[in-house]
Amino acid sequence: MRPCVESPFSVRGLEYGGAKPLFCVPLVAQDLASLITQAEVAHDASADLIEWRADFSQEISAGKFVEHLGGLRLVLKREPIIFTLRSKAEGGAQEIPQDTRRECIIAVLRSGLADIVDIELSNEPSIQEPVLREARAQGVRILLSAHDFHNTPSNDDLLEKISAMNRLGADIAKIAVMPRTATDVLRLMQVTLEARKCFPRLALCTMSMGSVGAISRIAGFLYGSDMSFAVGQTASAPGQIPIADARAMVDKLLRYS
Amino acid sequence: MRPCVESPFSVRGLEYGGAKPLFCVPLVAQDLASLITQAEVAHDASADLIEWRADFSQEISAGKFVEHLGGLRLVLKREPIIFTLRSKAEGGAQEIPQDTRRECIIAVLRSGLADIVDIELSNEPSIQEPVLREARAQGVRILLSAHDFHNTPSNDDLLEKISAMNRLGADIAKIAVMPRTATDVLRLMQVTLEARKCFPRLALCTMSMGSVGAISRIAGFLYGSDMSFAVGQTASAPGQIPIADARAMVDKLLRYS
Repeated sequence: MRPCVESPFSVRGLEYGGAKPLFCVPLVAQDLASLITQAEVAHDASADLIEWRADFSQEISAGKFVEHLGGLRLVLKREPIIFTLRSKAEGGAQEIPQDTRRECIIAVLRSGLADIVDIELSNEPSIQEPVLREARAQGVRILLSAHDFHNTPSNDDLLEKISAMNRLGADIAKIAVMPRTATDVLRLMQVTLEARKCFPRLALCTMSMGSVGAISRIAGFLYGSDMSFAVGQTASAPGQIPIADARAMVDKLLRYS
Repeated sequence: MRPCVESPFSVRGLEYGGAKPLFCVPLVAQDLASLITQAEVAHDASADLIEWRADFSQEISAGKFVEHLGGLRLVLKREPIIFTLRSKAEGGAQEIPQDTRRECIIAVLRSGLADIVDIELSNEPSIQEPVLREARAQGVRILLSAHDFHNTPSNDDLLEKISAMNRLGADIAKIAVMPRTATDVLRLMQVTLEARKCFPRLALCTMSMGSVGAISRIAGFLYGSDMSFAVGQTASAPGQIPIADARAMVDKLLRYS
């Protein structure tokens, strides 16, 4: 039995943080046509949630994002949508001026078309504060994230990041880090277990990236991670596994755990 | 890519310690008829190796063991056989006088019908020394084992046990311990990784038992374990997974790792 969130919450009727591990499929399209195709693939593959990595879009504008989200909703009637507009420094697909980014995210929050918003912990208060405030006002769930594409910080550093996310009122804390050794992967899972104990009401989404970390996308659920990213049509980060294979492995693993 | 033994060795043409994770199916029958049935099930399930847990036999005698091994060989033409006659204190199925145990193991070693012999590290020198000597004389591979059905000793204690097995000339060091927490399972995998680095020529077979430890039977290969025990017809220890499911999970995991 995996360690769950103390009070799992519901997003569009989907229980988040409960006994069932959730698989999120990222959409990384440049235009509306491919976005819709990727959404259909994810839907057909039974993704639990969808993350729209809007920073991959050719056109960065509040109007386009709201319009495309409307299009996504026609395909994704059931699946909660995570809206993510990452800056280049956070691993995003392109440079986006801070003001544009803030304006786009706020417009999306006001549209009522996104269920969860992802915002990087390292963002400056000038963007983080208004986004968190608007998300709360609109009843959109907050996913605070921290990425490190080169290294796995120390256990204490990782726990401090999760603690900071908790203090800021995150519903979900996401940690995605790159292992340099197999030990780094085991550490990430140990940190997840400790975070689950320290912050029993905070949903977690942790992963060790790349092929060395692939096991964390499968076994992380046993240590308190509540969601894993898996590939529908195109991966958004190294080490993501096709959703059908990932789910088959996790289902078997949970049967014997 | 999983960390392999520096020079994998061959047992009956099977590479032990190489890139391919090995699955061993234990046979725990009371009589020859069920032993043969279990061996057929294991063979049909494509077990890589077979462990005959002879301590489950109704009749404990050197003559019977050699006779039954002859019977097993007719069914198992390809698969290496591990011969194990565990004492009650080591988790065996029944009390067996020390002299009988030594006499039986030596007779089996002399028969040339077993490929690997399992002997617990904690055995007294009066049985361990002659068994190790005879195994070497007969060219039978040595698997030294340490079990703890209640607890997971400290990392240092576990590494010291593996070090002692290495000093005694083991070909394979086996550690099977019971986790009390999910952290104990991660520790067991970390210890395996360290042992793989410290003893690059020693094959390893490590597992965390019970349902909490089940993940170690799948992911252990990534951390240097070379063999996992899986169920054919009947399990011999808590947490063993049916071989078809175990192999399917490992095959998928290795594809992405």
